[in-house]
Amino acid sequence: MAVRLQRPLVAAACLFLCCLAGVRCGPDPRLRKELIDLEASMQIGGRMVLTDAEQRLDALLAKLKQDEMSRKDFPPSMHFFKARRLIQASPLFGLLQEMPKGAVLHVHDFAMVDVEWLVKNATYRPNCYMCFTDSASVRFVFASQGPKPVERCSPWVLLESLRAKMGNATKLDNSIRGNLTLFTDRDPETEYPSQDVVWNRFEAAFGALWGLVTFAPVFRDYYMEALNQFYADNVMYLELRALLPQVYELDGCTHDQAWTLQTYQDLTKEFISTHPDFYGARIIFTNHRHAKLSVVTEAVKKAMQLQKDFPDFLAGFDLVGREDQGKTLWYFRDALALPAEKGATLPYFFHAGETNFEGTEVDQNLLDALLLNTSRIGHGFALQRHPVAKDLSRKRRVAVEVCPISNQVLKLVKDLRNHPATALMMEDHPLVISSDDPAMFGSSPLSSDFYEAFVGFGGVKSHVGSLKQLAINSIRFSALTPKQQEEALVLWQRKWTKFVAKNQVLKTN
Amino acid sequence: MAVRLQRPLVAAACLFLCCLAGVRCGPDPRLRKELIDLEASMQIGGRMVLTDAEQRLDALLAKLKQDEMSRKDFPPSMHFFKARRLIQASPLFGLLQEMPKGAVLHVHDFAMVDVEWLVKNATYRPNCYMCFTDSASVRFVFASQGPKPVERCSPWVLLESLRAKMGNATKLDNSIRGNLTLFTDRDPETEYPSQDVVWNRFEAAFGALWGLVTFAPVFRDYYMEALNQFYADNVMYLELRALLPQVYELDGCTHDQAWTLQTYQDLTKEFISTHPDFYGARIIFTNHRHAKLSVVTEAVKKAMQLQKDFPDFLAGFDLVGREDQGKTLWYFRDALALPAEKGATLPYFFHAGETNFEGTEVDQNLLDALLLNTSRIGHGFALQRHPVAKDLSRKRRVAVEVCPISNQVLKLVKDLRNHPATALMMEDHPLVISSDDPAMFGSSPLSSDFYEAFVGFGGVKSHVGSLKQLAINSIRFSALTPKQQEEALVLWQRKWTKFVAKNQVLKTN
Ligand SMILES: [Zn+2]
Ligand SMILES: [Zn+2]
Repeated sequence: MAVRLQRPLVAAACLFLCCLAGVRCGPDPRLRKELIDLEASMQIGGRMVLTDAEQRLDALLAKLKQDEMSRKDFPPSMHFFKARRLIQASPLFGLLQEMPKGAVLHVHDFAMVDVEWLVKNATYRPNCYMCFTDSASVRFVFASQGPKPVERCSPWVLLESLRAKMGNATKLDNSIRGNLTLFTDRDPETEYPSQDVVWNRFEAAFGALWGLVTFAPVFRDYYMEALNQFYADNVMYLELRALLPQVYELDGCTHDQAWTLQTYQDLTKEFISTHPDFYGARIIFTNHRHAKLSVVTEAVKKAMQLQKDFPDFLAGFDLVGREDQGKTLWYFRDALALPAEKGATLPYFFHAGETNFEGTEVDQNLLDALLLNTSRIGHGFALQRHPVAKDLSRKRRVAVEVCPISNQVLKLVKDLRNHPATALMMEDHPLVISSDDPAMFGSSPLSSDFYEAFVGFGGVKSHVGSLKQLAINSIRFSALTPKQQEEALVLWQRKWTKFVAKNQVLKTN
Repeated sequence: MAVRLQRPLVAAACLFLCCLAGVRCGPDPRLRKELIDLEASMQIGGRMVLTDAEQRLDALLAKLKQDEMSRKDFPPSMHFFKARRLIQASPLFGLLQEMPKGAVLHVHDFAMVDVEWLVKNATYRPNCYMCFTDSASVRFVFASQGPKPVERCSPWVLLESLRAKMGNATKLDNSIRGNLTLFTDRDPETEYPSQDVVWNRFEAAFGALWGLVTFAPVFRDYYMEALNQFYADNVMYLELRALLPQVYELDGCTHDQAWTLQTYQDLTKEFISTHPDFYGARIIFTNHRHAKLSVVTEAVKKAMQLQKDFPDFLAGFDLVGREDQGKTLWYFRDALALPAEKGATLPYFFHAGETNFEGTEVDQNLLDALLLNTSRIGHGFALQRHPVAKDLSRKRRVAVEVCPISNQVLKLVKDLRNHPATALMMEDHPLVISSDDPAMFGSSPLSSDFYEAFVGFGGVKSHVGSLKQLAINSIRFSALTPKQQEEALVLWQRKWTKFVAKNQVLKTN
């Protein structure tokens, strides 16, 4: 079990310095213990003061984690698609689901709700048409009359008629589901042999679900369902990266971005009114990084306007899409410098360093995100290869949004123990755990990623203090004001105390 | 191309501090350049002053590396067994082969010589018997008469007769070769699905070659052949981890460890006499970490005795074998504390941190190696997960012996860009590149590992200064005395200057 310290170990520090000074150390058990304790205290939550009840919970966690470590197949070393069943069946995962995890700070608008809901709910609505693209994907649209044909797609078929014709729609539904997510029961290594293949499939899936989720009634229900699912996974606050697309009605009329943002805000308030222990949501307006400079310039201006109109709801701006193929932040520097030039403060939450290639133009995004005063870093997978950026991130408390399952599925790393966040957690680097696109990966809203972080990154060493710190970090590094953060923390603490009281040694018997 | 700095960038440091102090940075191109240069200067060899000729060589290196980076299949991200052909055919590899790389500080006695030599030379000698074990491996022995049967093995067959009977021995030779190495043309992921499987095959291969390489005439020729192959790969000095087994003669008589050590020393001198630009070799006496405490205690005593008798040749002591299954350094602490207790100095060169599991007993080896005053760390793969150990290693200049291909083949990491040494190289952590067991992996004596380090760890950023620093490190972190190091560096510098003069832009045309 992990050792927890109530204050920095002065003795250890002395011995440690003495060691550093070149005095020969020896196999002295006391010195050894001091150094082990010192190292343990440096990790995330390593200096957290724990109550007696938390210590009892920790004993339970340690036992449950030991069960995971001693499996023949260690789930964090396996592809999540193969590990999912093992993880979901584990008592540790059950406990992490129950745990109040605070906020999700990195998740995308249309990858939040289990695709099962899209298939069984959205596509079963009346007036839903589907066509088959010539690149083996599908498109959807809702329309009161037969919609206009689209290029590179078969003629539209009304799903209701198609299903009626088929009698048993299971096969059709399975095929639709397969188009809306990356998750598969087949061998993921064979299915997705390279980053190119997996990213193409990823973008194709977004193309497929687009017509469903941008239909106003589905759009509203999708977001409410998302809040329900995240709430059920014990998440209390969200910061949502949202493209704010033109949402359409059955007659083809479309709404503008302000309407979309307003809808998000109204629905959030509605949800809070029925779930008073849910703290809320904020939107990070995003634009694709493949866009032209002029488009991004307009988007930044739009973001500034929206921020003026929704000061408590719009958190900031970001660029999304595959970094390795996209334009660099530096390419957009003139657009991104606009707010500062105009004396406005538009917080940035840049995806940066979601790459395996070192020293490329794109690999410079991490440093550029920091130069552009990003508030957090999305992924920051390459941070270990950038000592200056790492130092800046640490000293300026620019938190890294770590999304373990996303990084694994998108083939940045195979065995999650080799994920750079393993080291970051050991050094208590400012970071939060998030889920990016859980619906694409077939993962839980947040608990699956917490499992990977706790077991895969943390190894035997992470403990209840680490989990607690991760939850607190998710509020401390949010876009909430300091006062709101205090409020949210009080709310969280109440949940946490309840959770700790309920889950103690009892279950080990 | 990488940026090289002649002195620490004071301006950058100021701006950097200013940034840290919370002053808002902006997309200022001058500041950006300073930070990029600062980061580049922090890497291994990043502050190396380069001659004009070296800068021209760097232009060539950068071009050749770019060719590697733009391949569809990026070799460092592939399993070495699949990448080998691509690497060997690349002009960059040819250049790295020619480059004077300094010393190999981590290589094992019986995995140095291309197995082809064992098959075509050793097993073709007279009096060579083979038997087939019941675990699908083989055993060899040389004997003047039919050797005694061994347990769990078929009756002995004289290879000479067997080959005569078969007419065409190609199949037999291929099968023998397959037993002596891990390298395979088949799919390595299928062949070695887990660490357990690959380690079992690894140990089985050592079992198979044992009877060949411990036969005195083969033993001598094997070592001479090793020196030849390493010399041809432009390695000028070796520190060899050697088990110093009982070497046997045809009549079954055996020699003691002193004889074996003496033989190594005599052969090294003989080799130097014909290759005056080769600097020599030293032995690190090793014992298996599965042994009992009493055995290791005796081995430590033996090492102290041998060090007294061969003060210029025996460099120190180490424990070898799979860490995850072996006993911990702490388990052997009483044995390992013996030299210090007796006032003797027996340098240690411990394998430590060759594991993926965090927080286990074995994972404590890294810190314990440092507590036991290890002179270097073999592998240190887990170092990033141990901030205290990392700090100690850095500040006390205890170099990490990084063996990229070994770590990949033994399944610690799949894509070498995720190897922890990527970050260590960016921070100029004290380290050397080595090859561990090249014959087992089908790799070159050192050049294949240099390729992986330069292209995989270094990405676009590493440059001729990095390579130069790696070579210099291999001498600076060796067990040679400071005076010998100066001598060796003079020798190396002469080779280097020649190499640089010969390989410049010419080849790019
Ligand atoms: Zn994302
Ligand atoms: Zn080794």
